[in-house]
Amino acid sequence: MANSKKSLGALVRALEKRVQIDEKACYAASFDSMKYSFMPEAVVTPRKEAEVGKVLELANTYGVPVTPRGAGTSRTASATPIEGGWVLDLSKLDKIVIHSMQGQAQVQAGAVTAAVQQRAEEAGWFYPPDPSSKKYSTIGGNIACNAGGLRGAKYGVTRDYVVALRGYLPTGEGVEWGTATRKNATGYNMRDLWIGSEGTLGVVTGATLKLVPKPETRWTVLLAFPDEATALTAVEVLLESKVLPSICEFLDRNAVKGAEAFTGKPVFKGMPERAVILLELDGPAVLVREEKKRVLEWAKRWAEAFKPSRNEAEAEALWAVRRACSPAMFRLADSKLNEDVVVPLDKQVKLMQEARKLENRYKLPVAVFGHAGDGNLHVNIMYRREEPREVKRAHQAVEALMKAVVRLGGAMSGEHGIGLAKSPFLSLQFSPVEIQAMKAIKDALDPIGILNGRKIFERTPLWELRPVEHQFPWDRS
Amino acid sequence: MANSKKSLGALVRALEKRVQIDEKACYAASFDSMKYSFMPEAVVTPRKEAEVGKVLELANTYGVPVTPRGAGTSRTASATPIEGGWVLDLSKLDKIVIHSMQGQAQVQAGAVTAAVQQRAEEAGWFYPPDPSSKKYSTIGGNIACNAGGLRGAKYGVTRDYVVALRGYLPTGEGVEWGTATRKNATGYNMRDLWIGSEGTLGVVTGATLKLVPKPETRWTVLLAFPDEATALTAVEVLLESKVLPSICEFLDRNAVKGAEAFTGKPVFKGMPERAVILLELDGPAVLVREEKKRVLEWAKRWAEAFKPSRNEAEAEALWAVRRACSPAMFRLADSKLNEDVVVPLDKQVKLMQEARKLENRYKLPVAVFGHAGDGNLHVNIMYRREEPREVKRAHQAVEALMKAVVRLGGAMSGEHGIGLAKSPFLSLQFSPVEIQAMKAIKDALDPIGILNGRKIFERTPLWELRPVEHQFPWDRS
Repeated sequence: MANSKKSLGALVRALEKRVQIDEKACYAASFDSMKYSFMPEAVVTPRKEAEVGKVLELANTYGVPVTPRGAGTSRTASATPIEGGWVLDLSKLDKIVIHSMQGQAQVQAGAVTAAVQQRAEEAGWFYPPDPSSKKYSTIGGNIACNAGGLRGAKYGVTRDYVVALRGYLPTGEGVEWGTATRKNATGYNMRDLWIGSEGTLGVVTGATLKLVPKPETRWTVLLAFPDEATALTAVEVLLESKVLPSICEFLDRNAVKGAEAFTGKPVFKGMPERAVILLELDGPAVLVREEKKRVLEWAKRWAEAFKPSRNEAEAEALWAVRRACSPAMFRLADSKLNEDVVVPLDKQVKLMQEARKLENRYKLPVAVFGHAGDGNLHVNIMYRREEPREVKRAHQAVEALMKAVVRLGGAMSGEHGIGLAKSPFLSLQFSPVEIQAMKAIKDALDPIGILNGRKIFERTPLWELRPVEHQFPWDRS
Repeated sequence: MANSKKSLGALVRALEKRVQIDEKACYAASFDSMKYSFMPEAVVTPRKEAEVGKVLELANTYGVPVTPRGAGTSRTASATPIEGGWVLDLSKLDKIVIHSMQGQAQVQAGAVTAAVQQRAEEAGWFYPPDPSSKKYSTIGGNIACNAGGLRGAKYGVTRDYVVALRGYLPTGEGVEWGTATRKNATGYNMRDLWIGSEGTLGVVTGATLKLVPKPETRWTVLLAFPDEATALTAVEVLLESKVLPSICEFLDRNAVKGAEAFTGKPVFKGMPERAVILLELDGPAVLVREEKKRVLEWAKRWAEAFKPSRNEAEAEALWAVRRACSPAMFRLADSKLNEDVVVPLDKQVKLMQEARKLENRYKLPVAVFGHAGDGNLHVNIMYRREEPREVKRAHQAVEALMKAVVRLGGAMSGEHGIGLAKSPFLSLQFSPVEIQAMKAIKDALDPIGILNGRKIFERTPLWELRPVEHQFPWDRS
């Protein structure tokens, strides 16, 4: 504690008004969207990028753990200060500059994803990565977990739009990885090593993002299928025919049943509880017109019923069912494990079968919905927090799911990362040699291990802990 | 030498017929496209991926340097066995399997790029990376230097098409980085760290590649401009208007002059020695038709003259001038330094000015041509090998060029990598802290430093060495 006083004193002297040590501020930074609270000693909110370096430098001097944080929308507790120490809140570093000629945005780590999208669209450009938390999540957080979202099938993920990064090594030394050029084959690609490393190998303070031309038009169609296998097989057929929808959301019958109960009306009149695909095309009008024809032909062959949108308002109405899914789930139970697993495109039917098996074996409601265009189906396992046996079964179900996903050639996370939540399963995905190689890199860049400790590599069974009661603005959406 | 006998004996016992130690085989593997010869002790040509692991394991046991090699088309001497030891020739690991449903190719490292493209096209798919050496270069080599090519502006580079990799760490342990899924946010992204690391962090033996739908049609137009600044400014304007050509090759007046002398006729009748843009659109016919209109309007505003192609044969004819550039250069002098520098799109005019300054200052022919759609202009500095003062001036000119490129916010290499050739300039691009971080990763993964030593990080002034006389099939094309 004496040591802690010394380091805290040094921090306050160096960063002054950027440092908060009161209980309220520390509590607010003590948990992220997963709601497992660990109190830090201080919260530092830099307003200049160089202050990030200063904080890390002091942390190295005094051996203080540091946890970087954006908005805290993490689905894996990756922004949870589990080792105490200092939280580095990057949300005030939020500048956005659009370079129209270059088709690039220069942003700071704390810029909110939706704000970047809006600024890009004002200039006729488009920033495609579209995590569901986009109204709150920051670019720095998106980079940390390589966030995906709805448009992955056609547009890829955050990684595909990061041109260059700048920030600080765990030791506090400033670095720039990459140039604001469209190509770069100069030195090791540290940029992509940082992306998805969940704030364990360095702290991003700024990024150059790639923009693409704003799609001229979009067209949406909602389709009903008698069962999940038919719906997912139809998606396979569509993708193999080389139609590339911008969005291809799948909802299993449980999800649709929930949404129908929630909204009080069936998605398709007289056809309750069907498996549903919500498909969107976007791009130049001439192209969307052609693709639409092919999609309608496919729909006639595969779907039990379908509703195309004739205009933007109708398109928005079709989205109602997708948006109702998440809140509807909480009518089944108060707690949800949302597992963003990803499998090869031709293994989605099998993944769905595995999800059904889990439901039967562990006696818990399981709904599957998500991004069928890129194999990133979210398996949602519902349980009641106050029932210890349900909690236990839910976590057994997650482990069984992870094993099945790896068996199918998939990955445990498509867009949320590992954080603490999936750390107990890391050895299902990677061999000891592979884990050792990754840890060797962590040790090489963070020799005294101050930056975002325990994340990814240290088995942390979160389910043994009790989350706090808190409502974030993005909860239940 | 006793030690060398011992290690070689162990290698021959373990790998038997895969090992060649005769002078002819060793000489052939002693240099790559840069033609600086360093004799290895043995050449190992695995026919099973596991044999790669075995070679590396033995190399670690005996402390023998290992240099991985594909076809040897490297433009940076990155496949040169400068430390002797063993060359690991991966060219016989050349399987290609197309997975049409997934839109993926499963390939081994030795698969030739053009063969992958052909196999993909037979299945209606398209593998866009298009290095000029594609008829010979291997996917493993493309991954090592993150090869680009003509289609970068629209389609990106090799990195954008690598879904997953497998291979061996420098210690000989087998690893897989990534899954055959469209998303993956699981663990550190070692895949992209390997890509572009020039065979210093591991040996790739196999890759899952992403394919895209084969473009339905293409349209080509050749345009003449009074000078380079007008041509490059016109490109800026086109890109800012969000037309995205699949190819946008620029040729400066020196390059065109050379090509015209070589082919014996002017590119545009009565308009000799103009700066030229070769532009290609590709994609769905309906879209290309629309974009063509916009390109023609732009051409009328900006170009002095232009020739659109009415069919595939005419398109091929337009390519003649681009193809004549390289061989024409060798009429000016016998040796060429082809520097694949890249700058932000709005800095190409300035880069061109810098190239002209070099020509005047160092009294050497300098021709600039390359990929103006992504800022990756190749600056070709010609000199006579038998004139020591020209050799010296040529290398001074390269250093001056690198300084200018970094000053413009660009990168020293867009698609060739650093290898040995650009190693003397690394500290112009990266700070000591950045270089230290990269080297820390090298040391973490290759503790005794056996894999592709001296590449990237050790200053090696190649120009003090004398290249061998040799004609590769890809030379002068």
